[in-house]
Amino acid sequence: MGSWTDNIKDIEPYVPGEQSAEKGIIKLNANENPYPPSPMVKKALRELDFDSLRLYPDANAAKLKDAIAAFYGVERENVFVGNGSDDVLALAFQAFFNGEKPVLFPDITYSFYPVWCRLFGIPFKTVPVGGDFRICADDYAKENGGVVIPNPNAPTSLGEGAEFVESILRKNQGGVVIIDEAYVDFGGFSSAGLTQKYENLLVTATFSKSRSLAGMRLGYAIGSKKLTGALEAVKNSYNSYTVNSAAMAAGAAAMRDTAYFNETVQKIIATRLKTKAALEELGFEVLDSQTNFLMATHPEKNMREYFEFLKAQKIFIRYFDKPVINKFVRITVGTDDEMNALLLKTREFLEIK
Amino acid sequence: MGSWTDNIKDIEPYVPGEQSAEKGIIKLNANENPYPPSPMVKKALRELDFDSLRLYPDANAAKLKDAIAAFYGVERENVFVGNGSDDVLALAFQAFFNGEKPVLFPDITYSFYPVWCRLFGIPFKTVPVGGDFRICADDYAKENGGVVIPNPNAPTSLGEGAEFVESILRKNQGGVVIIDEAYVDFGGFSSAGLTQKYENLLVTATFSKSRSLAGMRLGYAIGSKKLTGALEAVKNSYNSYTVNSAAMAAGAAAMRDTAYFNETVQKIIATRLKTKAALEELGFEVLDSQTNFLMATHPEKNMREYFEFLKAQKIFIRYFDKPVINKFVRITVGTDDEMNALLLKTREFLEIK
Repeated sequence: MGSWTDNIKDIEPYVPGEQSAEKGIIKLNANENPYPPSPMVKKALRELDFDSLRLYPDANAAKLKDAIAAFYGVERENVFVGNGSDDVLALAFQAFFNGEKPVLFPDITYSFYPVWCRLFGIPFKTVPVGGDFRICADDYAKENGGVVIPNPNAPTSLGEGAEFVESILRKNQGGVVIIDEAYVDFGGFSSAGLTQKYENLLVTATFSKSRSLAGMRLGYAIGSKKLTGALEAVKNSYNSYTVNSAAMAAGAAAMRDTAYFNETVQKIIATRLKTKAALEELGFEVLDSQTNFLMATHPEKNMREYFEFLKAQKIFIRYFDKPVINKFVRITVGTDDEMNALLLKTREFLEIK
Repeated sequence: MGSWTDNIKDIEPYVPGEQSAEKGIIKLNANENPYPPSPMVKKALRELDFDSLRLYPDANAAKLKDAIAAFYGVERENVFVGNGSDDVLALAFQAFFNGEKPVLFPDITYSFYPVWCRLFGIPFKTVPVGGDFRICADDYAKENGGVVIPNPNAPTSLGEGAEFVESILRKNQGGVVIIDEAYVDFGGFSSAGLTQKYENLLVTATFSKSRSLAGMRLGYAIGSKKLTGALEAVKNSYNSYTVNSAAMAAGAAAMRDTAYFNETVQKIIATRLKTKAALEELGFEVLDSQTNFLMATHPEKNMREYFEFLKAQKIFIRYFDKPVINKFVRITVGTDDEMNALLLKTREFLEIK
């Protein structure tokens, strides 16, 4: 008889990003939205029928799916919802990547992709981004078991247009193509409309960024009924009820309030443009962001030191201790006031009076 | 080049139980609690800081874990939480059952166990329950890659005591033993205390039954730090934030309100005993339930017809079209009024004046 620990999964624990409970910090390290959720979300949660929480939620999440479908001009059956876009993506990896050939995604990208591949035993191959950090569509023409492209990409912040996505799709009719649009609402091109043309295209998205609902854990995917059907089958084999009743109500309200959504997104884009210009003025090089964060470097300064300096001043940004991107910091776009505080401390760091 | 559908998982879609939106039905088919959640839950949700939903939840769920740990008299590190006990169990199957030998569980039990085994490629073997539907500990002495025992079992409603669980554990020191206690609060024996003695014992539980929070999707496990650590590692490789901020607040409040919990559970037990006696009076045979449901059969009547008759009268109970248990119906214990309505219609079905 072996030890009872023999069959325990041997896995390197993934450590989630720092979430400090400390007061008075300026939190620009998790790409959260600096603005609260829509007032309609608060209304929906206040008006929630608390007594009915004794009942299981709608396993089909019809009201939430309808709100998403209306926003994208698709049918309810083209929408899949989950417990954050991480849940949606993890289920999509399980549902669609069951071949022998490697799944392709960029080498500099969302760090969860290789983690899921290892967890589910999916062969994968990373494709280097260019020297300018752009993803080249031609690099995805080789044989593969599926393709995952974040657009805009994170943490590079760079987005690509319709021609790029169609080029990827034309070259990849033999597997499922996932376009991860976690950040698309901040000025990127959305491929959601292309799901009507390409039955093998799945577009994933989240309520955590542009909808200010990271705390409610809500993500979704848009795709053909064949794809959403396969996702439902895998989801229903895992957990029939992943989205709770409060999250459904909050999500539907957030999705319907397009006026608030547009206003918030526009404010963040305006702040991003101002901050980028100000950082460039201070000698930084800043990638051309289509997201709610900026990827910045300074030719004469060590970015780990910049990160540590700001942290000591209670301004939290993100530093990745990985090849190539260790020359950069990732700064979430907060409010104008938060960005002004950042710029003030940045001038101190640079010893500019 | 193959078809893009080649690598899609070929899986029989699991169809979740019927959730009718129809008004005026008496819903005794999903083992939901007939009483609303604690008033403390409503207060916690009303007082939720809606603005802070823009931030990610605490990935470690410290407040919720602390409330659970206090109830069981264990440490925070002995508690794992998830998006319903289905999520907790599915992660536990992935974390602990990675061997070649089959995992053992009863043949009549929760229908998700074989579904997860198939999804994750885990070998399994079902062990027949006895003629009296009881689980025999000696049957689990054979070589295995792990053991899963629901106690009380569902849908049989039968529970076993400390000696049974210790007997299982003594025979199974070579793998992880999961005791699924979804229904334990309605009069069963909880093995949570035994987790201090047996490092390979994981006890899982849910907020969906005794805590009236099925709509919030919350489950948890109690076990040694070795087991909870392995669960955290797998969970963090799947989705760092499975429990949202609203569910955490609701769950902590529900767990702390022991007075309401005890009162609700006692009411359900009292109603169960009365209903069992009344059904036996009408000629039914009813298993000796330690849960919030009754497994009943009638020697002269067809139970599918009984189920259909009640359904036509807007009383929903559960009928399983499976060998052996197709001679039974499963009736969730509702309020006294709901049970009286059930008994009235049952007399009609039996043509008793």
